[in-house]
This record gives sequence, structure tokens and C-alpha cells, in this order.
Amino acid sequence: KDRFFVIAGPCVLESEELAFSVARTMRDVCRDLGIPYIFKSSYDKANRTSIQSFRGPGLKAGLEVLGRIKADLDVPVLTDVHSVEEVGPVAAVVDVLQTPAFLARQTDLLVACARTGKPVNIKKAQFLAPWDMQQVVAKAESAGNTRILVTERGSCFGYNNLVVDMRSVALLSRGPYPVVFDATHSVQLPGGQGISSGGQRDFVEPLARAAVAAGADGVFMEVHEDPDQALCDGPNSLRLKDVPAVLEALLGIYHVTRRHAPVAR
Amino acid sequence: KDRFFVIAGPCVLESEELAFSVARTMRDVCRDLGIPYIFKSSYDKANRTSIQSFRGPGLKAGLEVLGRIKADLDVPVLTDVHSVEEVGPVAAVVDVLQTPAFLARQTDLLVACARTGKPVNIKKAQFLAPWDMQQVVAKAESAGNTRILVTERGSCFGYNNLVVDMRSVALLSRGPYPVVFDATHSVQLPGGQGISSGGQRDFVEPLARAAVAAGADGVFMEVHEDPDQALCDGPNSLRLKDVPAVLEALLGIYHVTRRHAPVAR
Amino acid sequence: KDRFFVIAGPCVLESEELAFSVARTMRDVCRDLGIPYIFKSSYDKANRTSIQSFRGPGLKAGLEVLGRIKADLDVPVLTDVHSVEEVGPVAAVVDVLQTPAFLARQTDLLVACARTGKPVNIKKAQFLAPWDMQQVVAKAESAGNTRILVTERGSCFGYNNLVVDMRSVALLSRGPYPVVFDATHSVQLPGGQGISSGGQRDFVEPLARAAVAAGADGVFMEVHEDPDQALCDGPNSLRLKDVPAVLEALLGIYHVTRRHAPVAR
Amino acid sequence: KDRFFVIAGPCVLESEELAFSVARTMRDVCRDLGIPYIFKSSYDKANRTSIQSFRGPGLKAGLEVLGRIKADLDVPVLTDVHSVEEVGPVAAVVDVLQTPAFLARQTDLLVACARTGKPVNIKKAQFLAPWDMQQVVAKAESAGNTRILVTERGSCFGYNNLVVDMRSVALLSRGPYPVVFDATHSVQLPGGQGISSGGQRDFVEPLARAAVAAGADGVFMEVHEDPDQALCDGPNSLRLKDVPAVLEALLGIYHVTRRHAPVAR
Repeated sequence: KDRFFVIAGPCVLESEELAFSVARTMRDVCRDLGIPYIFKSSYDKANRTSIQSFRGPGLKAGLEVLGRIKADLDVPVLTDVHSVEEVGPVAAVVDVLQTPAFLARQTDLLVACARTGKPVNIKKAQFLAPWDMQQVVAKAESAGNTRILVTERGSCFGYNNLVVDMRSVALLSRGPYPVVFDATHSVQLPGGQGISSGGQRDFVEPLARAAVAAGADGVFMEVHEDPDQALCDGPNSLRLKDVPAVLEALLGIYHVTRRHAPVAR
Repeated sequence: KDRFFVIAGPCVLESEELAFSVARTMRDVCRDLGIPYIFKSSYDKANRTSIQSFRGPGLKAGLEVLGRIKADLDVPVLTDVHSVEEVGPVAAVVDVLQTPAFLARQTDLLVACARTGKPVNIKKAQFLAPWDMQQVVAKAESAGNTRILVTERGSCFGYNNLVVDMRSVALLSRGPYPVVFDATHSVQLPGGQGISSGGQRDFVEPLARAAVAAGADGVFMEVHEDPDQALCDGPNSLRLKDVPAVLEALLGIYHVTRRHAPVAR
Repeated sequence: KDRFFVIAGPCVLESEELAFSVARTMRDVCRDLGIPYIFKSSYDKANRTSIQSFRGPGLKAGLEVLGRIKADLDVPVLTDVHSVEEVGPVAAVVDVLQTPAFLARQTDLLVACARTGKPVNIKKAQFLAPWDMQQVVAKAESAGNTRILVTERGSCFGYNNLVVDMRSVALLSRGPYPVVFDATHSVQLPGGQGISSGGQRDFVEPLARAAVAAGADGVFMEVHEDPDQALCDGPNSLRLKDVPAVLEALLGIYHVTRRHAPVAR
Repeated sequence: KDRFFVIAGPCVLESEELAFSVARTMRDVCRDLGIPYIFKSSYDKANRTSIQSFRGPGLKAGLEVLGRIKADLDVPVLTDVHSVEEVGPVAAVVDVLQTPAFLARQTDLLVACARTGKPVNIKKAQFLAPWDMQQVVAKAESAGNTRILVTERGSCFGYNNLVVDMRSVALLSRGPYPVVFDATHSVQLPGGQGISSGGQRDFVEPLARAAVAAGADGVFMEVHEDPDQALCDGPNSLRLKDVPAVLEALLGIYHVTRRHAPVAR
């Protein structure tokens, strides 16, 4: 919780080429800025809006790519798991496990992830209150694991829309675990395009700034070389070329917030 | 879609005795009113608020009880499944499979349930818009199964609260599948008691009436002999002794709505 | 609170001709069904989305039309007031005063209306909880007036959308005053067309049925001969020709609910 | 729009003494930090939750106090108006007029304020979408006045709760007018204490930081020497002694955001 960090990568492992390209650029940008970086990408999108949508390379092929990124580029990697069966193989490869927001209440999945002893990034569900996360986190802790991160990614707000309650970021950051702000899923318009989710890329940056100002310890971002061609989450993904400027401002805000602890209670 | 029906039972299989007692009474009450009845209870509560909460007898023991209720009392039974692995054993026993609301977007689970050929009751997630259900249903249909029911159980409304949008019931009822209103989960206050969900039993009845008036084809209700002692969902469960009066009014409203098709478009 | 009643008319007094035509038809339809009827129309729309929108004939000309409808057609009339200054002249003509939803918290307006001694229909604001209405009603009661009606017209639900929480109808109906369900404003999409509000006429009927089933004592409806040509609230207004069928079903549901008092607490 | 500014003062003019004390301290603190400061306080709280609540000294006495603060302390003053009749007398004294959030759609009030030629701070209603403010602002502009400020103060989020959508701050800040973030009303829990509104003072600071990071040009804060004794809005008011530290951090964030214009679109 003492250094600003970034989790980023393409939403899904579209191709090994794209994954390496994004990972390499992100690693170099973050190194220049002195920001610890973790590569993220999914091997399977298990809950796409439509059954027609691209899901990814699958567990085996996906883990191979993640393993090579880790080895060849020397960056830690993170991915999300969707069932208890996947936890073992995934934990054998990645540095951080992530539980999906929709599955935040599935007790067995949380416990299985925590039991691996690896750090677990628990995404807060869109349908949970900030304080509900205490019970969610307790499920992971029950397995004896306290290497936990908690991610805010927006709350249900009417239909096909999310709102980020910055009180949630502030509240979670008063807890013992690092708080991540998922800046790109937070601007999704779930199901907003009928057979896929829409997104509001132009709000990624102001929301990320706001979240860091409210107390987030790190940010999570989907990044793509050409988001309009992305096979998943394009409308909300950040352009790789915009990343350096985005991170510079976030780092500036982060430093202000760390110099000035909140006083008003 | 041409007869009012009821799905009901204790939230979880607390004991074989309770399950039989509720099933027998419900069966007799519904028979007297000429209402088709399906017994519902869970063998595992996979997403309780707290890890301390009672989860149920588990898959094997639970399916045995469900099998005996079906055989001994001659009532069809329904239960919910939480992972692809459970689908096969469950489908071997029950008459209707049910997918949980939180898992409404998990493609593999929906497809696996649909592939059994058994009727599938798909619960609409609290985080989905009514029209989002078209893509959810399409996932089940992709497996060649059109024996589908769709259940409304409320939408996220601020924190620790749900609201039932009766436009959703009306919209879903314009589709090809029977629409169920889950009258007791709809009055949950999710996480509202800190380590468990609260509930507003006194709103079960007005909401059920409203949903039937808005076009619901059937209702789903958690019923218990003594809800205050229930091991799960007590605050929102209906008292068994209140069921006959509740159903009589619902049946009256159902008949009015079927005599008078909506005209205003 | 012992008879189902209807408040209806064109949103705004577009022309004396339209007002008389709607009032006469509504009066005759309601008489045939044995339903007490109150004519409603506005002389001024003080809070239109856009400054370009039609506002109405104004206080003086509007009250003259309302006075003639009352005298010539022998129907009680209701209209809404928007400032303390208007209360006196309006109360001299109409049978029921109405306070707008957006102004539900303006203490002086509520008190001024109540002081006239006339019945006051208080619309619940879109931004208030059902229980907040107790303090709103207390403001009117403080003027010694208990001839109060309370109207439900939907709650904010994300942006440009309202949801009707039928628990609100049920809760308000447990109080001492008749509860009105405003079936046409409840399906507005506020600001949903950029320079005016959209509406979902096809949900008027299911929502009205649901509200009566949940305990509403009467309904409020904007009615127009040709809603697509209406100068205000056309998208959510009901077609005059559809009214008899709509009311027949509501009356049927009303009678079921009165025969069967809710039992489940 | 080129300098960070602060609007602050006690919610209501409880006493001349308190008003002077807060105004003097705020003026000095802001001068030291190089921040333009405007004093704000209300002469009448026209929409309190309960009719029992304190409303203020009234128009005449209140304007006298505001006039003396302006003259004696040499600070510009702002207050809110609640009816067309009040606009003239208020405009004769104050430097900035303010329209209340609940009245954001009352056309006549907006036009009357704008017609004075004085700057008008228009508060966005809790029931409006960010883009709805374009039509609200257009009403003021129609009177030929473009000295407009737009204030974000939260959106309805379930019952008795507000959420601040930082996308709104970002969107409004892309328009031509300065955007104010009302940091203390945004943490109100409207009606949350039954006969008065609750508040979450501990979220004032993180939300203000977030809003400035998202693009707000200035902040609005209710400030009191002893909030727990305040006659209005105590639970959300900031302690006067905490103001310097709060503003210092906001100024730091403001400077970061101005050095780094958002790039990601």
C-alpha cells in the first residue's frame, strides 16, 4: 500500500503478438515512471453478453502465453478464474489470481483461490455495497490468506449503466488491503449495445484521476493497440499510446494524496 | 402459459422432515385451488453473505431428499445448480433445473443446463435490464432447448435494497416463455443485516399481487413453517399457514388479467 | 378509501374544445362503470424540460375553462399549483388542489394549499423514499387539513428513467389517506428525448394494474384524443378510446384486492 | 475557469456572530492560499425535511447580515432564492444568486435570476442526468445572461442516499461554464434521520478531492465552527478548523489536473 501500481493489458488474449506488444510497452512505460506493473489478460471470457462473442484461447493455450510473457518479459502476470477447477492450473502459472465481479459471492471460488497462497485480487460486484465486501474478504481470509487486493469497478445504476461511488474507494482504502480502481470496466455500459456491452472511453481518465484522489492505491486498465478492433471490451479500452500521459497525471495526484492525509472526520 | 402455477418450498433442505411437511401442505393447498405445484428447495447455498452461514446438506444427500419427495408425494421438484459439474447428477433427479440470478451471465452453466433437455428456470440477475434477458435466454436456446422459464426477482436499487420493476414482468411476459415472479427473494435486503440478508416479508403479498396483475404466469415463494427459525432467508420467507389466503387472491387477480388482455399500446 | 376512483384529463389545457371532449367522455365512461371521476388538466406547465415548450393558457384563462367544465359537465375538477401566489385563485375554482412532485419539499406551498381547506393531492417526489412522505404530509396536516391524497409517480432509477416501487404503494396505503397511482407520469422517461421527456405508453396499463393490485385506491391518468399530437406528455398519455377497457380491468383487480385483505406480515 | 475557487459558509444564517466568524476565517484562509472566496449562507431553508425544523432569519434580516458581511469583510456573497418574488431584493444585495437543486426545473425562477444580470449558480437536481443540464442552462441563457456556474451535488441512489457520478463533473466541465462541486450536500443522506437529513462528513474530503481530480473548477462547502450544534445540515458540514488542510490538498490536485489535460478520448 505504499507505492502506486498498475495492472493492465488487453481484455482477452486475442493473440500472442498483441499480448507481448502491450506487455512490453506497458512494462517500459511503467519502468520509466517508477511504477510497479502487472500484466493482465484473460484466457476465457466466461460471461460475455452474447453466446456469439469471442471467448479467448482457453485455459491451456492461454496459460502458455501468460507463462511466456512472465518468463520472457520479466513481468508478473494476473488472470481471472471462473471455476474451482481452474484455480490449480492457473495458480501454477500466474502471480496474482483474480475473481470476477459477478462471482464475488461464490464462496467456493473465493476460498479455492485463497487456498493457493497466491495474492488474490477480489473484484467487488456491481450488486454489492462497499461494506458488503467485508464478508467477501472474510471468505478469502478464512483460508489463511491475507495477500488480498480489493477492486472497485462500479455499481449498478439504472439499466445498462454503472456509477462509481467514490465513497466506496475511500471506505475500502481505510481497510488493510490495497484498493485497485478498475478504470475501464467502470465505464462499461453493460449490455448497452444489445449483443455486447458499450463503453465510454472518454471517462476512463477522469474516473481514474478521481479514484486515485479518493484513495485508490493502484489502477487496473484494459489497454489495446487499436481498441476499435478489439475482440472484447473495445469501447472502454484505453489506447496504448495514451497510457504514458494518463499515468503521469495519476502519479501526480497520487503523490498529492499521500502528502496530505485526509483530516476531516 | 395458460395456467397459473406455483413453485415453492423451504429455501434450503434444512431437514427431510421440514421438506416433506412443506411439500405435502403446499401440494394439498394447490390441489384444492386447482393450481399446478412444483416443490423447490436447495441442497447447497453457494453464495451466502457470510462464510459462517449454513449451506445445506450438499449435492448427494440433497438429491436423495428431492428424489423421495418426488416419489412419495408425487410432486415435480426443482432445484438450483451452481456449477457445470452439478448439472448431470441434478438433472437425473429433478424435473426442472434452475440457474441462480448471480450466475445469469455464466455461459457454460446455462448451456449445460439447457443441454439436459429438462425445463430450465432462468433467474434474471439483479444487475441485468429486462431486455438483457434476450441474450441470456439465447444462450440456453443455443443448446436446442426451448423448455424455458424466466424469473423476475428484483433489480439493484441503491445499496442493500432491491426494487421490482413491474415493466420487466410486463416486457418478459410478451416473450414466448412463462414468466415467474420470485416473490420472496424480491423482498430481500441483500447483505442488509451485515452477516446475512434482511427481508421484508410484509411486502411479499403486495408485490406478488402486483406481478400477477402485470402479467406474471406463476409465482415462486420460499415457504417455511416457522420463518423466524429458518436457517436461510427467514426474514423474507412466507409462513406456510398464510399460503392459502395468499394464493386465493393471486388466483383472483390472475383470472381478471386473463379475461382482460391489455389494450393500450 | 372505500371506492375506486379516477383522476384524468389532458396533461395541459391545450384548448377548451379538447378539455370538454375529454371530460365529457371520461365522465360518461366512469358513470357507466360506477367510478367517481375527477377532471384534471394544467393551466401552466411550470417545469417543462425546455424553455421552448408549450406551457399552457396561464392561470386566468385556464381557471375559466376549469370553471366551465365543472359547471357545464357537473364534474369535480383538479389542477396543480406551482407557487403560493396561485393557491388562492385556484382554490376559488377547483375541487382538489395538487402539489407537483418536484415541489414536494417546498414547505410554504404545501401549507398554503392545505390552509384553503380544500382536498390536496400531494404527489410524491421522484427523489423521496416512501417513508419520507410522512414528513411531507405532516406539513399539510400542520395547517389543520386532513383531506389529503397521496400520489405515487415513480422514483429516480439511473438517468432519464423512473421505476415504480410497488412497496411504496403498499406502504402508503397502510396510512390514513387515499393513495393515487399516477399511471402515466410513472412511465415518463424524464428528459429522455433531449428537449422533452419520452414515455412508454405500453407500460401504463400493466403498471396501473400492478398498483391497484398492490393497494392503490385510485388512479391518475393523462388522457388525450390523439396523444401523438399532444402539446405535452404525449408519449405517455393514454388514448381516450382505450380508457373503458383499461378501467374495466382495474375495477376487476380492485374488487379482488378488497375481497382479500393481505394476510402475510 | 482559470483559477480554483471556493464557495463556503454556514448552511443557514443562524446568527450574525457565527456568520461573521466563519466568513472572516474562510476569507483569511483562502487569502493565504491564493484562492478566491465567496461567502454563502441561506436566509431561509424553504424545503426542510420537517415542518418543525429551523428555517432561518427570513429574507429581510438575512439580507441585512449578508450585506454587512460583504461591506465589513470585503468578501463577495452568495445566497439561494426560492421564488420569483425573492429574486429582486436578493439581487440588490448579493454578488451571486443560486437556484436550489429541487427547483432546477422551475423555468420562471431560472429566468428571473438570469434576468438580474448577476452571476447565477445553478445547482443540478438530484433527479437530473448531467446532459439534462443543457436545457436547464438554456433557460438561464434565454434571458441573455451567460455569467453562469453549474453545481454538481449528487444523484438519487436508492432511498435516502445520493451518489456522485464523477462522469457528470467531467462532462459538465467540458461545457463553457465553471463547474462547482458541492462537497457537503453531496454527502447528505436525505431524510435519513426520519425528521431530518443525515450526512457523512468523513466522505466530504475524498469526494471533494475526486471531483477536483475529475475536472471541477471550484468547490462549495458548508462550514461550521461546531457542526454537531448546527441548526441545519450539521452531519455533513465541515469543521472550520479542518478547512486549511482540506483546501491545501484540493489545490495540489487542482494544479496537477491543470498541468495535465486529459488525453484519452
